Amino acid sequence: MAIGSGGFDPYDRACASRGFLNDVADPWSVLVLGDLLEGPSRYTDLVRAVGGISQGSLAKTLRTLERDGLIARDVLPERPPRVEYSLTPLGRTLAESFQSFHAWIQSNMLTVLDAQSSYDVAAS
Amino acid sequence: MAIGSGGFDPYDRACASRGFLNDVADPWSVLVLGDLLEGPSRYTDLVRAVGGISQGSLAKTLRTLERDGLIARDVLPERPPRVEYSLTPLGRTLAESFQSFHAWIQSNMLTVLDAQSSYDVAAS
Repeated sequence: MAIGSGGFDPYDRACASRGFLNDVADPWSVLVLGDLLEGPSRYTDLVRAVGGISQGSLAKTLRTLERDGLIARDVLPERPPRVEYSLTPLGRTLAESFQSFHAWIQSNMLTVLDAQSSYDVAAS
Repeated sequence: MAIGSGGFDPYDRACASRGFLNDVADPWSVLVLGDLLEGPSRYTDLVRAVGGISQGSLAKTLRTLERDGLIARDVLPERPPRVEYSLTPLGRTLAESFQSFHAWIQSNMLTVLDAQSSYDVAAS
């Protein structure tokens, strides 16, 4: 199988890489990582940037990405203390690998919309 | 924002590209698309290949990817009729763009596991 080559196999439900896939193959994770490519952000900035994300979903996404070592949570020594999220070097490499996906959307979304319309007409 | 450049902006919850992101930024979609890079598959082959996927999740994933124009469902003229799923040319380009993600897992999963352990120790 193309993807399973190498030591980790996300096709195996028991492999640790499956858990990681579940963490990051997620719309909120993709959007948060992409936003942080632009630079560090505060929680409230992220709520604004990622349209429609709930406070709960954002908190969960940030915890998950921090646990995976992809983002860092820094408390800045200001008054009041300011919490900032940023990509780690590891997270940056992953976020950059997602960029090809976003480029794909820009190039192909019209084709996808055509396909969806055809499917919906055929199904109705 | 890095990702939102161009005509479609998945950061906008009302943009069609957000719905598409929800379709494909999903572990089952990623795994099914990756498996089909190897060639056409039958439903039962996919159930075996994608460890832990339920019949319901697979059926839903296949319908979603077919609606998006990423995979084709072909009924082969055999007795009994055989149904095969394959990547469309469009789906192939997306599945190929996901390959960098899988390469990333192979290179970095040990680092992720270390990060998870440190996080869990700190949190306990």
